[in-house]
Parts: sequence; structure tokens; C-alpha cells
Amino acid sequence: MTPAGHLWIVGLGPGPAHWLTPEAAQATAQASDLVGYAPYLDRLPPRAGQRRHASDNRVEAERAALALGLAADGRRVALVSGGDPGVFAMAAAAFEAIERGPAAWRALGVEVAPGVSAMQAAAARLGAPLGHDFCAISLSDNLKPWAVVARRLAAAADGDFVIALYNPASLARPRQIFEAFDLLRARKAARTPVAFARAVGRADERIVVADLGAADPGLADMSTLVIVGSSETRWVARDEGRAWMLTPRRYGEAR
Amino acid sequence: MTPAGHLWIVGLGPGPAHWLTPEAAQATAQASDLVGYAPYLDRLPPRAGQRRHASDNRVEAERAALALGLAADGRRVALVSGGDPGVFAMAAAAFEAIERGPAAWRALGVEVAPGVSAMQAAAARLGAPLGHDFCAISLSDNLKPWAVVARRLAAAADGDFVIALYNPASLARPRQIFEAFDLLRARKAARTPVAFARAVGRADERIVVADLGAADPGLADMSTLVIVGSSETRWVARDEGRAWMLTPRRYGEAR
Repeated sequence: MTPAGHLWIVGLGPGPAHWLTPEAAQATAQASDLVGYAPYLDRLPPRAGQRRHASDNRVEAERAALALGLAADGRRVALVSGGDPGVFAMAAAAFEAIERGPAAWRALGVEVAPGVSAMQAAAARLGAPLGHDFCAISLSDNLKPWAVVARRLAAAADGDFVIALYNPASLARPRQIFEAFDLLRARKAARTPVAFARAVGRADERIVVADLGAADPGLADMSTLVIVGSSETRWVARDEGRAWMLTPRRYGEAR
Repeated sequence: MTPAGHLWIVGLGPGPAHWLTPEAAQATAQASDLVGYAPYLDRLPPRAGQRRHASDNRVEAERAALALGLAADGRRVALVSGGDPGVFAMAAAAFEAIERGPAAWRALGVEVAPGVSAMQAAAARLGAPLGHDFCAISLSDNLKPWAVVARRLAAAADGDFVIALYNPASLARPRQIFEAFDLLRARKAARTPVAFARAVGRADERIVVADLGAADPGLADMSTLVIVGSSETRWVARDEGRAWMLTPRRYGEAR
């Protein structure tokens, strides 16, 4: 009889160990097999007897199927993501694979371990930009038509949400963030606060703030999380010419 | 000369210790003073010499001012929230207080420690309901007019976002979740998957899933996070009659 396999779908957070939850640390420590994009696996300490299955980026379906196949063979597998696996990361790919795969995969023990997502790390550095209702939108059109992205950006602007933009640009998709800013500039005030938060928590962290009218969308790359404020978002002056980014809890007439 | 005070605005996550980040654990351990809603302070182990300033719920502004005043007096203060302080928690209240308070508060060392928010814990239990673009909306109209909530619900439906509803109901506000469901039912398919995730990670955790057309909004209370799917969200059958909630990465024609 095959031993009972198990799959953990684990979020490692934005990078530094102080944002790795104990649950994620424990799941990755006790796994017999680690599956994930190579730079995420590199964050985890080597352990005797533990197998590593590193993959390239953008092969999420294959990575999920590999992890599920190993678990179905009785292995105890941790499929790792950066950030939170449930937010533009591996959880959706894993459950898509479970849906389409052999029946045995639907009977597996599967657990998702949440993590700190990029927008939360960015918000923590900036102050409280997500302090009120917000949307998270991926600008990637690899798996959805651009028309859906544009519709959602328009709806998010019409609802006056704070907007967190994931996957704003990559070498293969340099133009989407420019199109998104064009769309948002047509619907939101030029003085709307904007932040480009790159690699927050990592050695190459860089944060640039601007107003929507003057912001350079070219600052965004694949490691950048962009936050665009609501009509209520504002700067709170602090020392040394810096400012906190605040979306207050009150709105309009209730102030 | 007054010693340099410091303020950490800390998220403790949804409840269990395995979702408390090392950063949050360290900030609360090294603080001279802990400020927060009493049930959150009760999660932290007692430490000799550490002062606790427990408060009631719904006095966020006073709590933030207390923490800032202590830090300005040279204390090293941790102002604690459940979840992520940046998501419908204490960070916005703290920066509002900094904005309005004495100039010394704007020169203080302030750090925000992010945490796992309720929607992430709920999503982890359910599968991958936030697997694509989503909005987070608080249904509380204590600080914003209900018209703003209704406008955002409509925009979120029009944009076909997955919707995470925070603060869906309380003893003082039992009706908002019914009004929200009425509004969403007028704009979204009756078969849209819905989940009521109550106290996830705590002893009284309870998760109920349903379709939008048949769901009972009365299941929501102040400890409940409600997730309403997009047009793409679906159930993936698993064992024992249960199902995972999945919002896939692909959308419409790109499938």
C-alpha cells in the first residue's frame, strides 16, 4: 500500500525570513520534496534527504502537476510560491490541475499556507495606502484578454478603489503599464498618489512615489508592485522631505 | 534628553501562532508597551516589565493617539491589530493620528509589520477563491456613507471581480450584508460561488459555502469574512462531498 501523500501549497512571503510564517517554515522543513521556481527554493535551507525540483518561471501548470504526481505517489510535497500562494501565485494553478487531473488527486490531503503578499509589504513600507476598500489586478494578459484588464481598471476607477497592480510589466510585456496609466489618467485626478514598490524586503528594494499625472510608468518591472490611490488617498509629511501614503478610513461626507 | 521612542504597528494575523510572522513576534517581544484591543493583547505571552494598555473595540483613534504619545515620550511601543494592520485595521488610524497630531509625531520612527489578513486565511481554507483579480470592501458604514459602499459593490460586480467582504455585519449593523447581497444578486449569476468563513484558524472556525442565489446572508457576523466569486469562480469536487473554491487564472476567451 502506498503511504499517504500530502501536498502543502506554501507562500514564502516577499523574501526576508522575518516575513515567513511559522506554518510555511514548518511545511517546507518537513516536506520530502520541494517543488517551485528556482529562486524561491533558493531561499530555503538545504536538508539531508529532501529532494528539490526547481523549475523555470511561467510553467505553473507543469509545476503543479509534478507536485500532485509526487504527492499521489506517497511523497510529502511542498509546492512553494513567493508572497501568498492564493494571490496571483500557485494555488490557482494547483487547483486547476486537481480539477483536470486523475481522480486520485481530488482525494489527496491538500493544505494551503498563506503568506504576506507583495501589496502588503509595499503598503507596510508606504504607511497605510490600502487603509480602505481596494482592488488587486494583474496586468498580465498571458491568460486573459486585455479587454478584461481594461474593463476591470475602469470599474476600479469608477468605484474609486485604491488599486494594487500586480505583474505591471515584464520584458515581454513592457507596454501594459503605460496603457493602464493612460486609462487611469482619463478617469482619476492627476494629483492621485501613486507608488512603485520594487522588491520590498529584498536587497534591491526601491520605492518611488509620485502623483498619477507625473508618474513614469516605465519605473515598473516584473518585481514591482504599483499602488494607485483613491480620491481620498493623500500624503502625510514626515521628516527629511519624506511622506507617508495614507488612505483614511473616513470617506467624503462622513468625514 | 528623552530617549528615542519608536512605534511598531503590528499585525498578529488571524489568530493562531503559526500565522504570526517572526517580525511581529519580535516587535511585540521587544516593546516596552503594548497597545491594542484587549483580545489581541491576550494572544501575546506576558513579559516582565512590559506594560499593557488594553482598550475596547471601536476606539481606534484614541488607541493610536495613546501609542503615539507613549512613543513620543521615549517608549518603544507596539500597537497591535489582528490580521494585517494595513487592511481594515490600525495602520490607517495611526497615520490619521500622525497627520493631525503634534509635529513630533511626524518625526517618530514608525514601522508597519504586515500580517496575514482574514481574506487570505479564508482563501487558504477554501482552495483558491482569490486566484484572480479581486476587491476587498468593508461593509461598515460607521465612517463612510452607505452610498459609497453600494457604489463600490456595483463597480466590483461590473468589473466581475471576486469580492472579499470585511465587517459584513455586527450587532449594531445587522442589515448591510442583506442589502449587499440584494445588490449583488441583481448583478451577478445566482450560481456564483459564495463562502462565509468565520474565525478561520481559531477554535470556533466555521466555513459555510453556498451559491449566491441560495446563500443566507444571516450567516455573517463580525468575525466572518465573506467571499463572493466572479463569473469564472467554480467548485472543484473533492472527497466526502466537499469542494474546493477556485477562481482560475484564465478568463473567458483566453481559455
